Amino acid sequence: MKLEKLVGERFKERPSECQIESHAIMVKGGYMKYVGNGIYSSLMPLKRITRKIEQILREEMDAIDGQEVQFPVCMPAALWEESGRYESIGSELLRFTDRTGTKMVLGMTHEEAAVHLVREYGNTYARYPFMIYQIQTKFRDEARPRAGLIRVREFTMKDAYSFHTSQEDLEQYYERCHKAYERVFARAGIPEVISVKSDSGMMGGSVSHEFMLLTPVGEDSIAICKECGFSANMEAAESIIKNEADSVLSELKEVYTPDIHTIEEVCDFLKMDVKKSCKAVVYQKNRDDQYVIVFLRGDIEVNEAKLRNHLGEEVHPGVITEESGINPGYIGPIGLPDGITVVIDSSLEGATNLSCGANKKEYHFIGFTPGRDLPSDTEYADVGKILEGGICPVCGKPSITISRGIEVGNIFQLGTKYTKSMGMTYTDANGEQKIPIMGCYGIGVGRLAASVCEAHHDDYGPIWPMSIAPWQVHLCGMRIDNPEIRETSDRLYEELMGRGLEVIYDDRDVSAGVMFSDADLLGVPVRVIVSPRNLKENIVEISKRDKSFSERVPVTEAAERISELVKKELSAY
Amino acid sequence: MKLEKLVGERFKERPSECQIESHAIMVKGGYMKYVGNGIYSSLMPLKRITRKIEQILREEMDAIDGQEVQFPVCMPAALWEESGRYESIGSELLRFTDRTGTKMVLGMTHEEAAVHLVREYGNTYARYPFMIYQIQTKFRDEARPRAGLIRVREFTMKDAYSFHTSQEDLEQYYERCHKAYERVFARAGIPEVISVKSDSGMMGGSVSHEFMLLTPVGEDSIAICKECGFSANMEAAESIIKNEADSVLSELKEVYTPDIHTIEEVCDFLKMDVKKSCKAVVYQKNRDDQYVIVFLRGDIEVNEAKLRNHLGEEVHPGVITEESGINPGYIGPIGLPDGITVVIDSSLEGATNLSCGANKKEYHFIGFTPGRDLPSDTEYADVGKILEGGICPVCGKPSITISRGIEVGNIFQLGTKYTKSMGMTYTDANGEQKIPIMGCYGIGVGRLAASVCEAHHDDYGPIWPMSIAPWQVHLCGMRIDNPEIRETSDRLYEELMGRGLEVIYDDRDVSAGVMFSDADLLGVPVRVIVSPRNLKENIVEISKRDKSFSERVPVTEAAERISELVKKELSAY
Repeated sequence: MKLEKLVGERFKERPSECQIESHAIMVKGGYMKYVGNGIYSSLMPLKRITRKIEQILREEMDAIDGQEVQFPVCMPAALWEESGRYESIGSELLRFTDRTGTKMVLGMTHEEAAVHLVREYGNTYARYPFMIYQIQTKFRDEARPRAGLIRVREFTMKDAYSFHTSQEDLEQYYERCHKAYERVFARAGIPEVISVKSDSGMMGGSVSHEFMLLTPVGEDSIAICKECGFSANMEAAESIIKNEADSVLSELKEVYTPDIHTIEEVCDFLKMDVKKSCKAVVYQKNRDDQYVIVFLRGDIEVNEAKLRNHLGEEVHPGVITEESGINPGYIGPIGLPDGITVVIDSSLEGATNLSCGANKKEYHFIGFTPGRDLPSDTEYADVGKILEGGICPVCGKPSITISRGIEVGNIFQLGTKYTKSMGMTYTDANGEQKIPIMGCYGIGVGRLAASVCEAHHDDYGPIWPMSIAPWQVHLCGMRIDNPEIRETSDRLYEELMGRGLEVIYDDRDVSAGVMFSDADLLGVPVRVIVSPRNLKENIVEISKRDKSFSERVPVTEAAERISELVKKELSAY
Repeated sequence: MKLEKLVGERFKERPSECQIESHAIMVKGGYMKYVGNGIYSSLMPLKRITRKIEQILREEMDAIDGQEVQFPVCMPAALWEESGRYESIGSELLRFTDRTGTKMVLGMTHEEAAVHLVREYGNTYARYPFMIYQIQTKFRDEARPRAGLIRVREFTMKDAYSFHTSQEDLEQYYERCHKAYERVFARAGIPEVISVKSDSGMMGGSVSHEFMLLTPVGEDSIAICKECGFSANMEAAESIIKNEADSVLSELKEVYTPDIHTIEEVCDFLKMDVKKSCKAVVYQKNRDDQYVIVFLRGDIEVNEAKLRNHLGEEVHPGVITEESGINPGYIGPIGLPDGITVVIDSSLEGATNLSCGANKKEYHFIGFTPGRDLPSDTEYADVGKILEGGICPVCGKPSITISRGIEVGNIFQLGTKYTKSMGMTYTDANGEQKIPIMGCYGIGVGRLAASVCEAHHDDYGPIWPMSIAPWQVHLCGMRIDNPEIRETSDRLYEELMGRGLEVIYDDRDVSAGVMFSDADLLGVPVRVIVSPRNLKENIVEISKRDKSFSERVPVTEAAERISELVKKELSAY
């Protein structure tokens, strides 16, 4: 491929709208173009990268006995009504009607379609386990697409669905898939990706993991234990708070706290550490706007994912009306109006002598000791966010650190959520009807490409790993108007192509500066320079985009040497 | 791959809802499953076929300097408003709004997206010509999906777009693409596909061709000249009618024709050949319901595609109201009310002594001779359907035959319809601003797979060409409970896999009948049978699915022989 013919514009300037490097690089490097909010067209370099990623995904899914299938992008809503998700998912599920008025959805994930496809096939235990996967376009109507390919609305995803007759079998397969995912990320050039426990969210099921590329520009917060290696998405991480009881318990006493509204003001006014307070956070249920008030230790934030899971339904930040009987600024767990769902976070367990609202305008309590002052059957729920320096739920040491990460893949043990609701059963060895157990496993292709770029770039552009690079060799013929250069470069190009290498050949009559800056933007791992100075000595210059390597090789040996280099790097994956 | 593990159900019975064989085969063979009207999921065998077709498409598009890109499935309506197609296309364009209320469309073709992607890149003549293509999911909200993958709503398509600075350059490239299409169909196993002149319809542009697989179950009618090889879609075929003038011209005379309404009744009543009549067909313009009346020779039908093109707008069959002043049953070209668009078909040119309506209840004219009785500036338009036995517009012989065909691809010379409306320009060598000229080229992947199946099947299933077969070799281990059979079959399977062949291995303990009927349904070109009877003589049986070949080969030579067979067939494409 001649660079001169490559369709797409490359820019010198960093596009001002890009917040993260991978986005900026892909726009200024001619990889993609904005079409609409969270929607892009891909140009040839990106398409070549994503096709290689897709091939890695295919090979690794086939290696764990996956069978490639294809589900529709557009599905009848009836299919999603079977699972209940047509109702339960918010506006990120794109709903529309076709010309006949039939309700349809755009697939954002394909559990329903997967069950539909194998519902009859999987009617006997002898056919289990099996796994089907697809690589297909999906649409998720995100409220806030951002960061280029990291959070888009339309994207290509590899999604896989496995079916089992026992939890043990699912767990074994889940582990195989976990390992396959590690291989995928290693082969794509980011072996540093870690798996963390995650919240299953709208997918249902219990156990799930996300694969995270740690980077400051990531959207997710991850709790990692420096001591034992435990890791979990903040959304899912158990928060363990140990309160030491004061030796003397004060009496519960009302105090006058005029013009005091926030928990900080309360603590300031009472000259107490914020840890010695009990704060309230008000939500309302999406379903009926009923109030939900969460009480936590003053220094702990609500983890809304855990709150949702605890309640088993969606909530939104509450708006306190006059009629509610709630006194904003003075809310406490004692003496609340009826009809409110109260959640006491486990950060309050064992705490003593706290301040809290008195549910009365301009009054707070002090000396609040939950274990004494709350009803004896009070249950504590874990709905708080884990803290930097917090206690690791596995090793128990106060060694939690919080990092940012990009989620590049996820795996879920779904259980029977979809098979049960959609009436899929099989006959077991004893002739009994049973419900199969499912797992599901996703990797976004474009997001993975962007993540690799985020992990491997410098100030001038991406440094693509050989396994997914748009081309393997970038050949620069400098001063191509020189007939000797033209001849040597053309011949080398033909030789390299003849060896089956993927070569992008820059034979434009442009300055070295333009040539190199374009080569940097394309990020091809091996660069070959044919220049007048080198040719005088009858050599060509071979270097690596990551600057780890550079050598001068006789012209006659160049093709062989380049071919060796490429093969060596390819075999490393 | 072991057949036992292949996900999907195979049926003995022909599904009653299937009208054509390829549809029936793909449903009963476990290739695909119905999800909704015109929407299917694909199982592994079909997915393997379509991936091979996609690879052929890629290779042939790359060979004519195409660059693979990817456009979005979901596009902002604004893009389609630029070209005017958001308004002009009917309800087959699926329109919806996203969560923010933004108007969107599902891509059914991507001319707008293609121009959008290269609008800035293509700003100088030096970058031309170039071609970009994608293989992507499309959605067309067809009123009547039918025939399995032949006419669906959601489908995968290879669509390519070329850009040029002159009509000559477009024509040259169009010819290259025409040849590439011939190679695609030959490689996919249907070299018999012919290209026919077609109507450009909603795509715009003038010259276009469809590639047709001739088959009685096709949806399209194609006019082919037995003499010179001319071919065209009926929709586009010029109709040439030669009328011989009577030696004596009668006078135009009103006759009383009570209770006569159809052209047949008129001719019966007047005892005249239907060719000696002038009939009227009434339409209304979609835009404003204005009447359009087409007059043709009594034996000729209206070709609505040609009528639309002639008028430059959409029409629908007319509903005649009292107020219109039109006398149904008695409509003629003389004395019509004002405000009606009249189209005189060229089949009336040179005709003499016809009957026609007198625009008066219960009266017809006889002795109507258009060349004498119509105004001297009357223009004749070609809006009639070509007839079996009609005159070839190229060689002039009366040797037209009408065949049915499936359209498996199309190519269009679009001209500047999209570039002009979307404001794409380039600077030419003289510094002047010019508008690029486009071509576009489509092949539906699933429809191609179904067409190959339609062309190559027998009563038992498909006969896939080696180039796109889901597997290359179908290995049957018969009486697998016999340890010798098991050992020989397993070893042969490993040997074949070791040679890089694609093998589906049936090692189920089932009857020969079940084994062979499943093999027939999968249609794999080379079949290998290990059976007790053969093994006694230390041989295995190798045959071809199309029954053209069968031989018995010593066990030790089998792998080599099979490998030869596969390679030979592959190299034939």
